Amino acid sequence: ESGTVYLVGSGPGDPALLTVRAKRLLEAADVILHDKLPGPEIIEAIPEDRREDVGKRAGGERTPQSEINERLVELAREGNAVVRLKGGDSFVFGRGGEEAEHLAAREIPFEVVPAVTSAIAAPAVAGIPVTHRDHASSVSFVTGHEDPTKAESAVDWDALAATGGTIVVLMGVGRLPDYTTALLEAGMAPETPVALIERGTWPGQQVATGTLETIVDARDEAGISPPAVTVIGDVAGTRDSVVEFLENE
Amino acid sequence: ESGTVYLVGSGPGDPALLTVRAKRLLEAADVILHDKLPGPEIIEAIPEDRREDVGKRAGGERTPQSEINERLVELAREGNAVVRLKGGDSFVFGRGGEEAEHLAAREIPFEVVPAVTSAIAAPAVAGIPVTHRDHASSVSFVTGHEDPTKAESAVDWDALAATGGTIVVLMGVGRLPDYTTALLEAGMAPETPVALIERGTWPGQQVATGTLETIVDARDEAGISPPAVTVIGDVAGTRDSVVEFLENE
Repeated sequence: ESGTVYLVGSGPGDPALLTVRAKRLLEAADVILHDKLPGPEIIEAIPEDRREDVGKRAGGERTPQSEINERLVELAREGNAVVRLKGGDSFVFGRGGEEAEHLAAREIPFEVVPAVTSAIAAPAVAGIPVTHRDHASSVSFVTGHEDPTKAESAVDWDALAATGGTIVVLMGVGRLPDYTTALLEAGMAPETPVALIERGTWPGQQVATGTLETIVDARDEAGISPPAVTVIGDVAGTRDSVVEFLENE
Repeated sequence: ESGTVYLVGSGPGDPALLTVRAKRLLEAADVILHDKLPGPEIIEAIPEDRREDVGKRAGGERTPQSEINERLVELAREGNAVVRLKGGDSFVFGRGGEEAEHLAAREIPFEVVPAVTSAIAAPAVAGIPVTHRDHASSVSFVTGHEDPTKAESAVDWDALAATGGTIVVLMGVGRLPDYTTALLEAGMAPETPVALIERGTWPGQQVATGTLETIVDARDEAGISPPAVTVIGDVAGTRDSVVEFLENE
């Protein structure tokens, strides 16, 4: 009989932000498939003989998703309780939906274990709420991987600017100049506050703040590098008023 | 010396989806201020002499936020370790930002403890990822409390429709007819899939699915009542292909 596959998010990186359910499954599963994104503290707590790194293959290139999907099926069919561990939440820019579809197509039972997403937690531990009664009644999450200067870019920065809500960009360090320009061209005010949070909740957490006009320079001065979360909107300006008493930092 | 205030989210309701940090703080805090939203399983696990319900005052009306803010300050100044426990994540439509500002203004140290948000978890446990490589490269979160027919409505449904991404509406059971109409008028396709998840991760979880045109009837037939999360977009259509093997249900 087939084992179950657990699609588990590890949260933003701090092991204390694992859910109780995720922690139990990491302790009990027969095998855990992971990449590097959950972070060393969480990965190294798993005994080596129960974990399989599917982030890179020998040679250094990324393991194709189809291969990971097949490995999940294979291990489950051998009767294992299998955890597929992702950084953040598997169902927020994490390929969890594709894995679920593949498992269902192969008739493998699976459970989804939601997690704390970095998109909310990284700003939060820097003192920034993604929504706020006085500043933002909506929040949108996008990834910064895509090139906003390409016509076929799937992210509509004009529409995001028009929502008037907070915009959170995941994996958006490198393309920061591109999408801040796109948002300025869409009519957002140059003085709109922006914050960059590198490695939110990790020991090496770093924060840089500025505006749509100044954040690229602020990024370079602070030496912010991936992984980081970008928060764009008035909420990013609230950090200054609370950071002195914020014990997360 | 002042105690610390912990702004803690309880997650979507299932106690196993508390974070390890939240669980420890609930066990160790001197006093926990809460309302009903974290759910009975989480509330009742806290000894009665350490918890204070600030959801409603005698008489039944809601405790004003200013009063909760002052109570947090008072308890911290007495030297207590105080948990302010909210349903979901405190920093996603949860007044956490306002509480942080109030505490900082009163020079009370505080820590933010991010949580699993129902906006992502309720769809996830129903088999619906809020983003998906084939269907949605962005996701926007709004609340359904506001009346979209009012000119001064803070939520711009036209802009949300124009993003082309998933739209997740929290607390949006009652106004479902209003905002589905607003989205249709904004040009979204009538056949856009929509799912309603009531009490996601709770024992009484219920799901209704349909399209922008049919979801109001589906809601009424299934008898969906608050609290529920609405997911609008192609991702909502993926549930059907996975639900048979989804062990969360």
